[in-house]
Amino acid sequence: MKNTDKAVTVLGLGAMGSALARAFIAAGHPTTVWNRAPEKAAALVAAGAVRADTAAAAVAASPLVVVCLGDHRSVHEVLDPVGDALAGRVLVNLTTGTPEQARELDAWARERGAEHLDGGIMAVPPMIGTPSAFVLYSGPLRTFDAHRAALDVLGGSRFVGEDPGLASLHDLALLSGMYGMFGGALQAFALVCSAGGSAKEFAPTLREWLGSMSEFVTGSAEQIDTGDYATGVVATLAMQASGYVHLVDVAKAQGVSAELLAPLAALMERRVADGHGQDDIASVIEALVEPRAATGVTGGNR
Amino acid sequence: MKNTDKAVTVLGLGAMGSALARAFIAAGHPTTVWNRAPEKAAALVAAGAVRADTAAAAVAASPLVVVCLGDHRSVHEVLDPVGDALAGRVLVNLTTGTPEQARELDAWARERGAEHLDGGIMAVPPMIGTPSAFVLYSGPLRTFDAHRAALDVLGGSRFVGEDPGLASLHDLALLSGMYGMFGGALQAFALVCSAGGSAKEFAPTLREWLGSMSEFVTGSAEQIDTGDYATGVVATLAMQASGYVHLVDVAKAQGVSAELLAPLAALMERRVADGHGQDDIASVIEALVEPRAATGVTGGNR
Repeated sequence: MKNTDKAVTVLGLGAMGSALARAFIAAGHPTTVWNRAPEKAAALVAAGAVRADTAAAAVAASPLVVVCLGDHRSVHEVLDPVGDALAGRVLVNLTTGTPEQARELDAWARERGAEHLDGGIMAVPPMIGTPSAFVLYSGPLRTFDAHRAALDVLGGSRFVGEDPGLASLHDLALLSGMYGMFGGALQAFALVCSAGGSAKEFAPTLREWLGSMSEFVTGSAEQIDTGDYATGVVATLAMQASGYVHLVDVAKAQGVSAELLAPLAALMERRVADGHGQDDIASVIEALVEPRAATGVTGGNR
Repeated sequence: MKNTDKAVTVLGLGAMGSALARAFIAAGHPTTVWNRAPEKAAALVAAGAVRADTAAAAVAASPLVVVCLGDHRSVHEVLDPVGDALAGRVLVNLTTGTPEQARELDAWARERGAEHLDGGIMAVPPMIGTPSAFVLYSGPLRTFDAHRAALDVLGGSRFVGEDPGLASLHDLALLSGMYGMFGGALQAFALVCSAGGSAKEFAPTLREWLGSMSEFVTGSAEQIDTGDYATGVVATLAMQASGYVHLVDVAKAQGVSAELLAPLAALMERRVADGHGQDDIASVIEALVEPRAATGVTGGNR
């Protein structure tokens, strides 16, 4: 099937929804757009989209209906009145939300005879349609496979599982990782600047260092899945916990708050106190999860 | 000058000191080694090093004296009795410590007629001598330049300034960045594993994502140096603070502690409450530094 055979509708034309519509238009998909405030459609119509007067007409126009609104509540406000029109169509919800909201919408859509994919967009609007954007999807694999060509127009498509909540969960996991890195980088800059240093001069070294230290992601994944944090350890948790004290003390001495550093220090100390001082640092993940998983994050050795 | 003309002494033969000595030997430097517990020298002697019987003899053997001990206190325990022997030599202290300790040792060394470089090793022992290792140096630039060829044997050498405390400060800054990323990655893994996911399957996406999001380091450095966090913002602090709540709520719903996430949430909220909601997220660095720098991390716009 050529792109031009596959009509797509985009509901919600904020910065992200507009970027999605623009990518579909650029790839040759007949694209219908709708927004509560209709004036947002003008630029897209000029680029080749068709503006629908109502959400119902927009849904009726295409077999693939992409929704990108402000929040889950807005999704229901827009879709509830047009639920019947969704029968036989594929609803792709790219609105940011929680796994629970994704599962709720999935049940709602299936009740109305629609297939549903939930997606998490790992990009800011200017990245949509470029190789640096990717979108996580969860829902029926069959549905994903059938529409992958159209979805790939937005960026790389990654299927993470059939549970409709998984795209959101993985999205939030990636954001958690990102914000950890952001907090670490800001702490690093604050320290260097506290001695009159230039952030810009320090940045290339920091970025390169974080790039090479991201090997931790690969190495710790293996440890986490097996629950074995003690084999081949180069720097033990006990050593790292004792060195970590310098980070806190020197920050304070330089007039930089240590608040971002404090929770990891506490987790490391807790694990050392619990007898895991010879483990690798990834072992602190065991202290992050509730007691029910105390024998291993994924339920112990598998 | 060929490497073979430049004798080097290494004091302290723990895992790191031994790796340093091995790199000097491999590069053809006549290498004298000494350790409090002398048996640690055996493998290095087998590789071509000369073992000195005393620290004084070790210092006397080479113009370049590299020290890598457990902590600052050990450095003084070893060097204090042999201080006079250091006159006219170059002391390169690669022992982990604080900026204050580096400045103290610098004054001590200069009083004894020695030149001093303080260094921060950004590598674990197995990386020493490979292109992925680098070492930060601070002290007199003239001294660094004169000995750079020998120091480059250990890994890439980066001079960060004449204040002897700067190598330590930059070292601790890089470690702070790294631990932020580690904490973020563990939070991400905990979330994915809480739904039964495999850390190993998720790891490539997480690593790639962190790599592309490390662009933040470059972009925020510019903002931090200028104090302008408000130009060309794609996702405002207010938007990010409101989305961040999902990370916390979903972590808790999945039985994952949100303790690593909490401090950044508080910083973001504080900045939004202080009227900086339209800034970019790097603006939270202003809330990390003491009031004296409230007009900009580096003292306001420059």
